[in-house]
Amino acid sequence: MAHAENLLFPLSIIGLIVVSMTAALAAGRRSMDWMGVVLLGSITALGGGSTRDVLLGNYPLSWVQEPYLLGITAAAALATIALAPVIHHFNKAFLFLDAIGLVLFTMLGCSVALKGGHHFAIVIMAGMITGCVGGVLRDVLCNDVPLLFRAELYASVSILTGLVYVEGLQLGLNPDLVTLVAFVFGLTFRLLAIRFRWEMPKFVYERDAGR
Amino acid sequence: MAHAENLLFPLSIIGLIVVSMTAALAAGRRSMDWMGVVLLGSITALGGGSTRDVLLGNYPLSWVQEPYLLGITAAAALATIALAPVIHHFNKAFLFLDAIGLVLFTMLGCSVALKGGHHFAIVIMAGMITGCVGGVLRDVLCNDVPLLFRAELYASVSILTGLVYVEGLQLGLNPDLVTLVAFVFGLTFRLLAIRFRWEMPKFVYERDAGR
Amino acid sequence: MAHAENLLFPLSIIGLIVVSMTAALAAGRRSMDWMGVVLLGSITALGGGSTRDVLLGNYPLSWVQEPYLLGITAAAALATIALAPVIHHFNKAFLFLDAIGLVLFTMLGCSVALKGGHHFAIVIMAGMITGCVGGVLRDVLCNDVPLLFRAELYASVSILTGLVYVEGLQLGLNPDLVTLVAFVFGLTFRLLAIRFRWEMPKFVYERDAGR
Repeated sequence: MAHAENLLFPLSIIGLIVVSMTAALAAGRRSMDWMGVVLLGSITALGGGSTRDVLLGNYPLSWVQEPYLLGITAAAALATIALAPVIHHFNKAFLFLDAIGLVLFTMLGCSVALKGGHHFAIVIMAGMITGCVGGVLRDVLCNDVPLLFRAELYASVSILTGLVYVEGLQLGLNPDLVTLVAFVFGLTFRLLAIRFRWEMPKFVYERDAGR
Repeated sequence: MAHAENLLFPLSIIGLIVVSMTAALAAGRRSMDWMGVVLLGSITALGGGSTRDVLLGNYPLSWVQEPYLLGITAAAALATIALAPVIHHFNKAFLFLDAIGLVLFTMLGCSVALKGGHHFAIVIMAGMITGCVGGVLRDVLCNDVPLLFRAELYASVSILTGLVYVEGLQLGLNPDLVTLVAFVFGLTFRLLAIRFRWEMPKFVYERDAGR
Repeated sequence: MAHAENLLFPLSIIGLIVVSMTAALAAGRRSMDWMGVVLLGSITALGGGSTRDVLLGNYPLSWVQEPYLLGITAAAALATIALAPVIHHFNKAFLFLDAIGLVLFTMLGCSVALKGGHHFAIVIMAGMITGCVGGVLRDVLCNDVPLLFRAELYASVSILTGLVYVEGLQLGLNPDLVTLVAFVFGLTFRLLAIRFRWEMPKFVYERDAGR
């Protein structure tokens, strides 16, 4: 399994960068100041993995052990301010970066929980927590109802990506190959879900609004 | 004290089910999709106990050790979608389920902290955290000011239920009897508070709204 | 370093009191009931340090080990209700108490992380988390976008105060002197930032609002 890290490690750095950038764009839509942009970027990028590690009792947290990770997320958030005029030209930039982060962080979270020897269901949950909680923190701190609970397939993409990744590893396939396949699968699925507005059925309940 | 588990264990499963159902109804009022319903149900049902265990450093968390608990909360949330047309006929269903969950989780939280050998005040706090934090997470994720801070006696019911439960155990009474008495006491108190709109005095402060 | 505790310990009690009071005033502006005032005060006062300790794996948390701290925060919140008519006469009372809490908690957080032997960057982060997270919890629970992300220099004050404090200690100066100097520096800086509306540049990003 240690081998799986070879490709996952650089990908996880890319994940930190793109997730911090999505949060910086969200901060910009709220006209936050530069410090707010850096904080929101770093909390969003590192919040999913930190939540996973706190829930699993997996100490020390990655950024406590490797403080340079904080430098990466802060730099990515600041770079987004500089790049904003360029990003303007790419419609849907936010959604694309967010999808990449979701898929990469999901695999990373599964990988960490696998190493911890957890039950299969917990491995999938760890992937989903790592992939999704950062965005939930971002939305709560921006005072929105989290995307996670409203959007087209989002947590579902994370769960399916985790299943592909973990099953692939359990079949004994080459970890780097599994990583690539799960990445392409998850990203494609998420982008198709956005493009064609795939949605789960909604639960609408009106009565009994007491309180 | 282990004896106290006899009745508390099945009650805690009931607590998980009813709390997940309250969150599912809240999700339905926000027209969340099925995945959002499952996630909000599970987070609300397991969030109070998880917060308690993280604050007390009580690892591993219950659902990490017993992943089938996730299955129970997910199933309860999904069943709520199916049962919604029936629940419609029961006015105030939400409040009733919520009151049951509050009282059961309070006792469970006290029981866990007692076993950890904590100070009396921390045992009562652990009960309140277990009973109340799930609902706070539900409300924050739905972008509401948490009920806990606005409602008729809610945290107060949790604290008093905890006191009855812990004092009963410390008097050496039969744990199952204590559990039943504290359950009936807490549920009655909460329902009376709702029925007769018992309220604590409010603190209204208008000035100095600077920022 | 243990010596640094001499002055820091009583200051940390003052910090708990003033931060609980700021949250009580925020609760009063939301017309919360007395229990809500006590809860919001205690969560705000103890939330920053608890978050720091959970992230650093620094168990047991201070209030779990010293439950009387809960009594102090609860009493401070209740006292605020009684003092509200008097506080009315002090314009900007909220901002002044909040600034004191920010600076005291920042130094306390740095001190705890220093004792844990953490990297310099983590020590500064621990100070900022201790100083700022309580207020973020207060704002999220009041359903506001946290001040931290919008306001005049706030996190920046925390970081600079932490730098002055830690550098002073590392220079081998008398810890009590360092504590006093960093306190006066941080408080002055924060109050000047409020008075003269010092601000960081803002990042405004309008496009690509797709979610």
